[in-house]
Amino acid sequence: MQVGQLITDMAQAAREASRGVASAPVAQRNDALLAIRQEIISSRDSLLAANEADLVSARRLELDEPLIDRLALNPARLDALEEGLEQVASLPDPIGAIEHLRKMPSGIEVGTMRVPLGVIAIIFESRPNVTVEAAALCLKAGNAVLLRGGSEAIHSNIKLGELIGRGLAKVGLPTASAQVVPVVDRDAVGALLNLPEYIDLVVPRGGKGLIARVSEESRVPVLKHLDGICHVFIDRDADPEKAMAIAINAKTQRYSTCNTMETLLVAREQASLLPRLVRAMQEHGVEVRGCPASRSAAPDILVSAEEADWGTEYLAPILSVRVVADVEEAMAHIARYGSDHTESIVTENSETAARFLREVDSSSVMHNASTRFADGFEYGLGAEIGISTDKLHARGPVGLEGLTSRKYIVKGDGHIRQ
Amino acid sequence: MQVGQLITDMAQAAREASRGVASAPVAQRNDALLAIRQEIISSRDSLLAANEADLVSARRLELDEPLIDRLALNPARLDALEEGLEQVASLPDPIGAIEHLRKMPSGIEVGTMRVPLGVIAIIFESRPNVTVEAAALCLKAGNAVLLRGGSEAIHSNIKLGELIGRGLAKVGLPTASAQVVPVVDRDAVGALLNLPEYIDLVVPRGGKGLIARVSEESRVPVLKHLDGICHVFIDRDADPEKAMAIAINAKTQRYSTCNTMETLLVAREQASLLPRLVRAMQEHGVEVRGCPASRSAAPDILVSAEEADWGTEYLAPILSVRVVADVEEAMAHIARYGSDHTESIVTENSETAARFLREVDSSSVMHNASTRFADGFEYGLGAEIGISTDKLHARGPVGLEGLTSRKYIVKGDGHIRQ
Repeated sequence: MQVGQLITDMAQAAREASRGVASAPVAQRNDALLAIRQEIISSRDSLLAANEADLVSARRLELDEPLIDRLALNPARLDALEEGLEQVASLPDPIGAIEHLRKMPSGIEVGTMRVPLGVIAIIFESRPNVTVEAAALCLKAGNAVLLRGGSEAIHSNIKLGELIGRGLAKVGLPTASAQVVPVVDRDAVGALLNLPEYIDLVVPRGGKGLIARVSEESRVPVLKHLDGICHVFIDRDADPEKAMAIAINAKTQRYSTCNTMETLLVAREQASLLPRLVRAMQEHGVEVRGCPASRSAAPDILVSAEEADWGTEYLAPILSVRVVADVEEAMAHIARYGSDHTESIVTENSETAARFLREVDSSSVMHNASTRFADGFEYGLGAEIGISTDKLHARGPVGLEGLTSRKYIVKGDGHIRQ
Repeated sequence: MQVGQLITDMAQAAREASRGVASAPVAQRNDALLAIRQEIISSRDSLLAANEADLVSARRLELDEPLIDRLALNPARLDALEEGLEQVASLPDPIGAIEHLRKMPSGIEVGTMRVPLGVIAIIFESRPNVTVEAAALCLKAGNAVLLRGGSEAIHSNIKLGELIGRGLAKVGLPTASAQVVPVVDRDAVGALLNLPEYIDLVVPRGGKGLIARVSEESRVPVLKHLDGICHVFIDRDADPEKAMAIAINAKTQRYSTCNTMETLLVAREQASLLPRLVRAMQEHGVEVRGCPASRSAAPDILVSAEEADWGTEYLAPILSVRVVADVEEAMAHIARYGSDHTESIVTENSETAARFLREVDSSSVMHNASTRFADGFEYGLGAEIGISTDKLHARGPVGLEGLTSRKYIVKGDGHIRQ
């Protein structure tokens, strides 16, 4: 069969199945997650064998070691997977409740109800655990889901798809509610992106190349995450100890995450903090690149920041530092070079903080806290499908609610419009 | 200048201006609307003269009478326009408040703040009053706006753009916050749709051709309204008088609106209502087209409904009628032929009603009320930029909130992530 036809058939089946999941009571959706968990527990051996087939190919293809590591399943990772399913099952039901019901002057009552989006396609790269995590979140929110993982993980993903299907069948939900695309053909992605009649949302998870391709090509709405060029601004009125702690944590707690600080902005009056701060960064192995004013204040900064540094997401132990005149100049720098992801101000001045919180146009804006907190679990969402840097629909860490829509509910008693 | 360059320059200026509007206090945004109102009041004569130029061309081009009517401004319409500006100015500020602030286990407080979307492009057809209404809503929500009206209204729109710009300048807001595209070149629309770096949202308002073109071509997210094929279902347990009143109101109160009923579904047990109902429709001048069972029940139905009738938005005094076995079959019909806009069930059975409200996947789902209530003003939104049949971001009648985004706000006191 042509891959385009295969994907169309799968998407059409998902659309039909989506009505079944959407109208399933929450107990049945939770039971499905627990049944999938049980299938994974009972099939650990064959799952690890399928994963081994992927690992053998990966090694034969001499793929990068970090990629091979992300690809690998092992008992500890399966434990985490199984725990994740239990945890999503225990979250409150995001759909079905009527909210904000208000009586209008005409006499009708108007409220809203959270409802599933319908069919969601997740396009991701090598980590096979995403297959299960994403399926769990979509099903919990009453959606059908199409899962397209990386070609390196195809054996693992097909096996996981089979176990998910078995779990769904056990609780009487259509197996087409969660389907793994069983081919590695790159055209499968193009086909998914071209089916707005069957698919309501595409969520790409992976590197910038994948996300750029999906954004460029998709005729289906995309929930995406672009760069995370996050800033901490140490204001004139900052407490130096809080500033030190936040800056060091925001940079060094993890280097590869999107909410890691990449540029530190320091108010002129706080430049005297820089020597200590730079030393601390260097002790963590961070290379510091500075503007001329920062290098004057801290001669230990051995590298000059170039124009390109301000717009770079290092995802590495590198930090650019700039001295600015005031909060105004800091916000202008963020507006010009930032990626609207996460920025934090350190200050004891509540007016300056309020202004920064109001005027900085990023998905998370913080006061006296590390940018590393920008995360669905830290925000109490209970789960996270990703972090959106879009401004429509869902912005910032996206939990179950981002996988829902809402509709208006109107209650009358024979009311007609005058 | 090339039209592409003109539009790019306008969009870039709008992006820059958007920061000014976004950070303007609500009093200044309201004053802008009142200043625009004052400019319109002081320039009524030159505005009516510009409109007369449009009307002269329209008559010379022998445009349809209804189109010429929509194009015309007159003192009564200007009154309405001026009142509208006052009314939007009096609405509560949709942006800036921190909501849902909650303390997390880590000690940080997490909440959300409604913020402007940024730059919105409105692409609409002949009615020049949309220029002012749309500008008012966008500015109130702290956005910059690009307005592209129909070519028939170009003189009126350019004049209105000038008055809007003067009002903005009077209160010290950038005039680029609201700009009318001053050329009729069709390429201007294509150019707008291709600037996702400057424009955050496109709202097409007009006929199906316009909306289809915008949806197909746009690289900017679109908030759109497709068909309104609305249904009323008279359930087995319906109160006959409520059923009669709602069906007649939903069809006959206005024929050209998207929330008008196009298909009436009647449970088998209620078929005996049909003769009376059909007579009442016919007295209103409505042509009724029925399925075989409805024609047996009501021989006054002279026309057979064809398959194509079920998927047609008549926007005219025509109604299709189908007898169905039960609520199940009614919902299946709606899922197959409907446009997910607005559906209503008439029933005294609260279980059946709850099921219909939960399972029908439309932007508005109603119980014992006329579909004609699906409207931003009736829902208490205070204003309406349009009705969205999309499932992402905003669904159903869209008021000021649909023109906003939200961001996460995090408050700490030196908190770092463990």
